[in-house]
Amino acid sequence: MIRFLDDDFLLQSGTARRLYHEHAAGQPIIDYHCHLDPEQIASDRRFDNLGQIWLEGDHYKWRAMRTNGVDERFITGSETSDWEKFEKWAETAPYTMRNPLYHWMHLELKTAFGVDKPLKPETAREIYDHCSALLQKPEYSARGLMRRYKVEAVCTTDDPTDSLKHHIALRDEGFEIKVLPTWRPDRAMAVENPQAWRSYVEKLSEASGVSISRFDDMMQALRCRHDFFASVGCKLSDHGIEEFYAEPYTQGEIDAIFNRVYGGATLDGDQVRKFRSAVLFEGAVMDWEKGWTQQFHYGALRNNSSRMMRRLGPDAGFDSIGDRNTTAAMSRFLDRLDADDRLAKTIIYNLNPRDNDMIAAMIGNFQCAPVAGKLQFGSGWWFLDQKSGMEAQMNSLSALGLLGRFVGMLTDSRSFLSYPRHEYFRRILCNLIGSDVEQGLLPASELPFLGQMVEDVAYNNAKRYFGF
Amino acid sequence: MIRFLDDDFLLQSGTARRLYHEHAAGQPIIDYHCHLDPEQIASDRRFDNLGQIWLEGDHYKWRAMRTNGVDERFITGSETSDWEKFEKWAETAPYTMRNPLYHWMHLELKTAFGVDKPLKPETAREIYDHCSALLQKPEYSARGLMRRYKVEAVCTTDDPTDSLKHHIALRDEGFEIKVLPTWRPDRAMAVENPQAWRSYVEKLSEASGVSISRFDDMMQALRCRHDFFASVGCKLSDHGIEEFYAEPYTQGEIDAIFNRVYGGATLDGDQVRKFRSAVLFEGAVMDWEKGWTQQFHYGALRNNSSRMMRRLGPDAGFDSIGDRNTTAAMSRFLDRLDADDRLAKTIIYNLNPRDNDMIAAMIGNFQCAPVAGKLQFGSGWWFLDQKSGMEAQMNSLSALGLLGRFVGMLTDSRSFLSYPRHEYFRRILCNLIGSDVEQGLLPASELPFLGQMVEDVAYNNAKRYFGF
Amino acid sequence: MIRFLDDDFLLQSGTARRLYHEHAAGQPIIDYHCHLDPEQIASDRRFDNLGQIWLEGDHYKWRAMRTNGVDERFITGSETSDWEKFEKWAETAPYTMRNPLYHWMHLELKTAFGVDKPLKPETAREIYDHCSALLQKPEYSARGLMRRYKVEAVCTTDDPTDSLKHHIALRDEGFEIKVLPTWRPDRAMAVENPQAWRSYVEKLSEASGVSISRFDDMMQALRCRHDFFASVGCKLSDHGIEEFYAEPYTQGEIDAIFNRVYGGATLDGDQVRKFRSAVLFEGAVMDWEKGWTQQFHYGALRNNSSRMMRRLGPDAGFDSIGDRNTTAAMSRFLDRLDADDRLAKTIIYNLNPRDNDMIAAMIGNFQCAPVAGKLQFGSGWWFLDQKSGMEAQMNSLSALGLLGRFVGMLTDSRSFLSYPRHEYFRRILCNLIGSDVEQGLLPASELPFLGQMVEDVAYNNAKRYFGF
Repeated sequence: MIRFLDDDFLLQSGTARRLYHEHAAGQPIIDYHCHLDPEQIASDRRFDNLGQIWLEGDHYKWRAMRTNGVDERFITGSETSDWEKFEKWAETAPYTMRNPLYHWMHLELKTAFGVDKPLKPETAREIYDHCSALLQKPEYSARGLMRRYKVEAVCTTDDPTDSLKHHIALRDEGFEIKVLPTWRPDRAMAVENPQAWRSYVEKLSEASGVSISRFDDMMQALRCRHDFFASVGCKLSDHGIEEFYAEPYTQGEIDAIFNRVYGGATLDGDQVRKFRSAVLFEGAVMDWEKGWTQQFHYGALRNNSSRMMRRLGPDAGFDSIGDRNTTAAMSRFLDRLDADDRLAKTIIYNLNPRDNDMIAAMIGNFQCAPVAGKLQFGSGWWFLDQKSGMEAQMNSLSALGLLGRFVGMLTDSRSFLSYPRHEYFRRILCNLIGSDVEQGLLPASELPFLGQMVEDVAYNNAKRYFGF
Repeated sequence: MIRFLDDDFLLQSGTARRLYHEHAAGQPIIDYHCHLDPEQIASDRRFDNLGQIWLEGDHYKWRAMRTNGVDERFITGSETSDWEKFEKWAETAPYTMRNPLYHWMHLELKTAFGVDKPLKPETAREIYDHCSALLQKPEYSARGLMRRYKVEAVCTTDDPTDSLKHHIALRDEGFEIKVLPTWRPDRAMAVENPQAWRSYVEKLSEASGVSISRFDDMMQALRCRHDFFASVGCKLSDHGIEEFYAEPYTQGEIDAIFNRVYGGATLDGDQVRKFRSAVLFEGAVMDWEKGWTQQFHYGALRNNSSRMMRRLGPDAGFDSIGDRNTTAAMSRFLDRLDADDRLAKTIIYNLNPRDNDMIAAMIGNFQCAPVAGKLQFGSGWWFLDQKSGMEAQMNSLSALGLLGRFVGMLTDSRSFLSYPRHEYFRRILCNLIGSDVEQGLLPASELPFLGQMVEDVAYNNAKRYFGF
Repeated sequence: MIRFLDDDFLLQSGTARRLYHEHAAGQPIIDYHCHLDPEQIASDRRFDNLGQIWLEGDHYKWRAMRTNGVDERFITGSETSDWEKFEKWAETAPYTMRNPLYHWMHLELKTAFGVDKPLKPETAREIYDHCSALLQKPEYSARGLMRRYKVEAVCTTDDPTDSLKHHIALRDEGFEIKVLPTWRPDRAMAVENPQAWRSYVEKLSEASGVSISRFDDMMQALRCRHDFFASVGCKLSDHGIEEFYAEPYTQGEIDAIFNRVYGGATLDGDQVRKFRSAVLFEGAVMDWEKGWTQQFHYGALRNNSSRMMRRLGPDAGFDSIGDRNTTAAMSRFLDRLDADDRLAKTIIYNLNPRDNDMIAAMIGNFQCAPVAGKLQFGSGWWFLDQKSGMEAQMNSLSALGLLGRFVGMLTDSRSFLSYPRHEYFRRILCNLIGSDVEQGLLPASELPFLGQMVEDVAYNNAKRYFGF
């Protein structure tokens, strides 16, 4: 019997253990997609206690608490204390056994705080006090935690109108960890709400200094900001889309749609899709021009509970997995760019695992020298960012593509404690490969190549691919 | 090598065996969804022979026989004897190796009749005679079999027009096993066939004593019957739907649609969906008012063979798995009810396993205190009610929700011999958890909690959740 | 630790090894679906070197090379030599670890050439020279390779206009391996391009001697060719379709659609679907009349890269997995034929594995005596033709149907070196069954039946089912 969370956690064979300890464990972290608040890095935020750092913004834990019957007061209520919330979380914790939260939280307790007791009501107070005391130390600040986990670079997620002042400040002060912005222009496509979108376009005009009255003006404003992001070190874009958009359109149609929605009118479904098709395509060309990598996180069904949306706003744990069939549009979108050789490096993340093999096959259609693995099947995202999800993603990628060219893991997290997810991923990667070797599915004689492959997927590929 | 069907069947680790034997095996059975005929319980039916009890109405076995090339005469023909049919079944039996039927039938043979020989042509006569002789004994009556398997409560599946006379008789005579009705109003939504639906509405009018000429009358009649069902102990509703219905509609539209179809006219697809949206929503509110649990079995594609439909009618083994994308409608349906806090406890069962993760994520959107696990991802249904299907369901639920809050297994069966499916489920549950512990994925120190969790999923959760 | 590719490759238990070596290994091969060029068999083609036989037409390898960043010059370029291409392939080879290509190629090296070194840059020259030298020997001709792998029959894939002269020549000269045509009428349905379709219809008219000016003429011409194919030993049809077509249509509608497209006009989507529904249905009836087996390979999304389509044409590695929901149409198509008992033996192959369970359930709707396994869920196709894909297909088939009635494996290949895929399949089959026995999921006492089942799936079922 293997002990929970010991040094060989998840490593079920000798080869897996060797691959992990000799090739994976020591690699630095490139966290090329996350939702950290750059302000917290710039100000080197300190945390009051374990309740705050864990529960302040973690909608994964919130969902688990709601499922466990915990009253919302102890989840997002302002009238309850950090400790009171933590206590409810500690009650919920044992119920998360077999859920990734159970692994995440205990990996965090162990690697950040040296705690190796399971969290449960009986241990809650002791763990809370122990960790909260450590959090008072300077090495547990935002930056301290990043150093503890050997982070080399992080890419945050930023709106085109963002001033990027914290990124600039961090660069200027010479913070040794790269903190780079990511271009996420979702709001420029959010025409389903004309008023909110209009406000956003005005904000974009202000940020760019480009006055906007036509579609081309908006794209010009975006291009200004795109240039600015590049000047601050941006190398990736990202898009949160429900599906892919690749409708046929003419410039005249797009101009008319722009005018219509800019004037406050509601668009129909076709117009929305055409508009988004245009913005997505033109933005993709910009990414290609700059040698960036474009990311697509598609397929979420968001804000399902209108009651809780009104109460708490978005990103509070009321999103789930959609089921749109978007393969044909995805193909057309990529083909339009590829047709005249303007397809940027691209990473596609799906939220519905039923599409894993489809994506692993789709990227093969547009692979093209000289970049090895130019198109990437993104690592298990959100609901799939756990052992079975990562295994399924890597197994599909292996069977239909080349695992050795994979750029690997990212946290997608809002928390400075999430870096052990890289360790988790690496253990799973090594376990898959090691298991194949021990079953005779891969030749043991090729362990040197496999060791190199582990290092590549853990670190080198990302470094090379993104150009950090 | 583990021996087939021995005491440790399906239990591949010491921890699994301990969990099963110490925590699962002894629990009573709450079979909260089945298709038993209450008349057979009320009359305490006796069975003539093994052929009759096994083959009289089991469309799973029928399908397997058809696949094996058996002539329909030996499947549903009235001109062949029970023994002749059984003989053909015994020829088919070995071909069901790796199919759940092979496990079901041998579990039934072992636990009901003490037979531990594999069924095949060579053993057919001996097994038939042995079991048929036992079936003559009083303890092999319908009630006898229920007692043998420690059944505590069953919920049958009943039409709103049903008199529930057998349920009432059983209650009145003090039968120690609870036999409760379930509200299944599918026929009230079956407007695709105006004539059959009109007859049904007339039957409903008669059963309720409410004269029906408008939509609201029909809902009033349903409400009367809903009250009546409640008075007989009903605590669940159930719906067999191809997809979810949550179209926008106005009262005027629904009135017009009602009048149209009541007048015998064929509705178009939009009208059908609007009508069903209204009936489904209003029924859901009734369920909420009474504190019932609503169940949705969605996604079957029924009566695929029109030739055999004409010959044998529905539910004869000609149904299969559909592929509609219904996530957005499912979300809207739940949200409409949640929006003003009228969402009843809800269980969603899918038939296409490609939607497992989607559902496991969807239920998280509407979880809400004070009921832990208010929304449930239903146990593997029909084609998924087997080892791989149950494992997939529990793995998705675990990864995206809280396994410990799961209300667990039901037979969905028409047979008094199907209770070993609970044993089957419990073995699989314990095997999953035990395997996680032995692989170091869960801490061995938490075995007491895991033992409690097994007891909860096997029995306590259902008892608490449904309020038996 | 099991050694890579040794005698017990993929066989992880004693029972698996026994089943494979005693029951599977010695069976001849019936390769009932492939894309071999009959001319190469008739002329008994010889190959210049390993680069040519491996890389001349293998779009699987081409995709892998593109993914690995290899320039197109070294993939399909006419300016590079076989060795230069092979060298790039050898660089790519280690990156295919965990991809089926790694297993395919090393099985081919071992079983055809006796090479058991992994291909990589360091071994490339030696392996190339060794194998190329062997390829000069007469026993490495097209026919020699077929004999080496104990091939008993192959079915090629042929257009209705094909003269089948090579099939006839092979028959007439008494080649001991059956080389039979398969009827693949896809081009008769390809009305989305009116000009190309019109040319095809003219070619069909010429081949059949039937002058075509109406829909019925076209069907008559097809029927003539169908008769001719039958006379040359054809026993199967095949269809590469994106989805199933089963629209309602009248003769008048189809006549009008025919005239429209024959006149060069572009059809709308509805017209295309109606037309295809008619051609598919009438062709299916012909197959039924002749006792043939109809095959459907559905769900590919083809020619995704228009740039590479212009450059290299179809089937060059730019196809992938689609996501259409076609279950209802599939059901209607089968039902129309079944309704008056004209449904031929049918094999359905899906490309998106999310549909595995749906298909395994669908075939059960139309199973019918006297043919055991009349409807078949086809073996893992194309992107799914690998270990996990085959396991998933066999597991779904087992859980929802009868594995023992499965007609088993085919290569679907263009290469004379692909026969080890049958060995690969058989090892996986035996491993699944053996593992079940050793886990106590199947009774060890039934090994004789299981051994027979392995022989049936490997060989006997195909022989009986197709009538070779």
